[in-house]
Amino acid sequence: MVDVKKAKKLIIDNCNTAKVTLLTLSDVHGCILAETVIAAFDTPLFHQSAMDGYAFSFDSWNGENELHVAGEIQAGTYSFDLLKPLEAVGIFTGAPLPAGADTVVMKEKVIVNDNTIAINDGQLTKGSNVRLKGSQTKKGEIALNKGQLLTAPAISFLAGIGIDKVRVFEKPLVRIIITGKELIKPGSTITPGKTFESNSFGLVAALNQLSISPVSVEFVDDVEEEIVQAITNSLDADILILTGGVSVGDYDFAANALGKCSVEKIFHKVKQKPGKTFYFGRYHQTLVFALPGNPGAVLTCFYEYIAPAISCFTRREYLYKCKMPMAEDYKKKSGLTYFLKGKMNFDEVSVLPDQESYLMSSFAISDCLIKLDEEREYYRKGDMVELIKIT
Amino acid sequence: MVDVKKAKKLIIDNCNTAKVTLLTLSDVHGCILAETVIAAFDTPLFHQSAMDGYAFSFDSWNGENELHVAGEIQAGTYSFDLLKPLEAVGIFTGAPLPAGADTVVMKEKVIVNDNTIAINDGQLTKGSNVRLKGSQTKKGEIALNKGQLLTAPAISFLAGIGIDKVRVFEKPLVRIIITGKELIKPGSTITPGKTFESNSFGLVAALNQLSISPVSVEFVDDVEEEIVQAITNSLDADILILTGGVSVGDYDFAANALGKCSVEKIFHKVKQKPGKTFYFGRYHQTLVFALPGNPGAVLTCFYEYIAPAISCFTRREYLYKCKMPMAEDYKKKSGLTYFLKGKMNFDEVSVLPDQESYLMSSFAISDCLIKLDEEREYYRKGDMVELIKIT
Repeated sequence: MVDVKKAKKLIIDNCNTAKVTLLTLSDVHGCILAETVIAAFDTPLFHQSAMDGYAFSFDSWNGENELHVAGEIQAGTYSFDLLKPLEAVGIFTGAPLPAGADTVVMKEKVIVNDNTIAINDGQLTKGSNVRLKGSQTKKGEIALNKGQLLTAPAISFLAGIGIDKVRVFEKPLVRIIITGKELIKPGSTITPGKTFESNSFGLVAALNQLSISPVSVEFVDDVEEEIVQAITNSLDADILILTGGVSVGDYDFAANALGKCSVEKIFHKVKQKPGKTFYFGRYHQTLVFALPGNPGAVLTCFYEYIAPAISCFTRREYLYKCKMPMAEDYKKKSGLTYFLKGKMNFDEVSVLPDQESYLMSSFAISDCLIKLDEEREYYRKGDMVELIKIT
Repeated sequence: MVDVKKAKKLIIDNCNTAKVTLLTLSDVHGCILAETVIAAFDTPLFHQSAMDGYAFSFDSWNGENELHVAGEIQAGTYSFDLLKPLEAVGIFTGAPLPAGADTVVMKEKVIVNDNTIAINDGQLTKGSNVRLKGSQTKKGEIALNKGQLLTAPAISFLAGIGIDKVRVFEKPLVRIIITGKELIKPGSTITPGKTFESNSFGLVAALNQLSISPVSVEFVDDVEEEIVQAITNSLDADILILTGGVSVGDYDFAANALGKCSVEKIFHKVKQKPGKTFYFGRYHQTLVFALPGNPGAVLTCFYEYIAPAISCFTRREYLYKCKMPMAEDYKKKSGLTYFLKGKMNFDEVSVLPDQESYLMSSFAISDCLIKLDEEREYYRKGDMVELIKIT
């Protein structure tokens, strides 16, 4: 039996992954960039107008000259003609300045007389309303650093500099095996002794919260050979999650079955509540989390252990962690770390009623897990506690 | 031209939706419950053991009697036989207690002699290690309230009480139209005057952040008839987003085209930077957001206006809002609300360099949008500012 701190360390120590994948920009939202992106172009790609107006040479205007309108350039078009002194072209936002022009005046600041314009803009300086070529990125220089979280604006930026694919840290391939002879699907007719299966729904939703879809969810009877077979079929995953059968009962086959499949046990049992019988093992690069069947323990272990393991793959921190003062006193037994279903208020955190691990009713309305230390027995209102936000 | 506060109010006032949909439990993660769920069963469904051990009648044991082991009950099985006084059955976690039993002793606290057991557990009381039928939910009573965010634990709870479908607030159907003759796809060969199209990537990623997939993304040239056609085809959406062509230039056809499609203009132009030419309209129940083509303005408007509109549909708050002190002084012009790309530090927020709206390089590495008030010109280090976290 290991303590929580040791269990967390052993998991992270066994996550020695560095898988990187090249994905199209449409598929990278929420990923972490695994390469430093170098700009392939100067962007803007050309000197471009920031306004609808007229482009001209500031020096030839000289603050007073009327300018002859020689044409117009719409965004998406291009003029190869050199603009002569005392000429202007009508120009639109995003359109390229013609050679010879260096300044744009807004159309609202101009008096048009047939084919000439008179500029009435006291604020205008050379280069006004022009986005210079290369003022965002310069070809060959760093555009975005490795390690950057790819938010919507980061993706928009990459697209705008012409990037359509980037290398990101790959999401782990996750498989789930649910064991338990007593389980029936929710919505089906109940028969004596059966219990509605909920762990597959809870785990798939929790993975979904981390933008991960498990590649398989398999349901297996409490029969050792069947469990061995299911594990054998699942060891191509990066992360294998089993629920049920990790206790010491006569029908708890998971730990034995994992041994038969050459999964190396890293630890079995953690000094915690819920989830004391939590098992963690490894088969080559596959991390194996075998959790008790109890739904409360399953999701507690997910948030406390599996989410950080997934972070090792994706390099992304998923769950917000902080410290808050307790809203009321709490008494626990020493010897186990407690993870309690909590509810954050504005500036303190409450322990919800009904903490027994089979009662999901409190977990259902909680927004955080509060960690109470193994050796400590008393917490007073106002004592600071660590918590993980789960919403 | 409206101010930011008025623009936000007009959008919310026009979001009078209450669409509810019945979804299977696999599809509701992150949704808000649109009904109060009533328990259809007592759960646990029966008195069940919380341990691997032996079930017996506490009174007949009397603290000293040896008990005859009459059989065993595995989880998922059931015994219809009445347990006699001075009898015990081997029982496993989650298995139903037989009639006549009221207490379970852990297997570790028992000495087994052939077919009898002697209990050695000073802590044992009547009802120990038993999860009573109905102790989680009682048939006909409220299991989960309308308005609950469906987290993984909430979904696990619902599955565990036998629910396989629930009514949730429906996500809006979103369509996107990108206009701009100058746009080419990132990754393609550049030609003179063209710009890499990035708004579709940014918007799809931003919607993805809110767990919404747009049903269509259409690219249209700056030709009024084509824009009219694209809008006409898109007015079945709950939310239609256009980018480009909302300014006052000769090729800015979006506002006109929307008028021709009988979209009612609610406002056009907001006293803000970026995104001053932002247009909001409505066609029956369809909300229409026509944004400038500028990628920085597009995503700023998304986070400030479209995300709150989506919240009206789903009833979920997406983006964390808070106040933090400024890390340095900042000077702005009065007359416009500024939305600045910011970076949160431990206890203060910095304004990133390169705030011009065409520069996405700063937006790409920002984690928040800082709101600076319309009329105010000076902010000092330490002044509190409102911000929206965008990561």
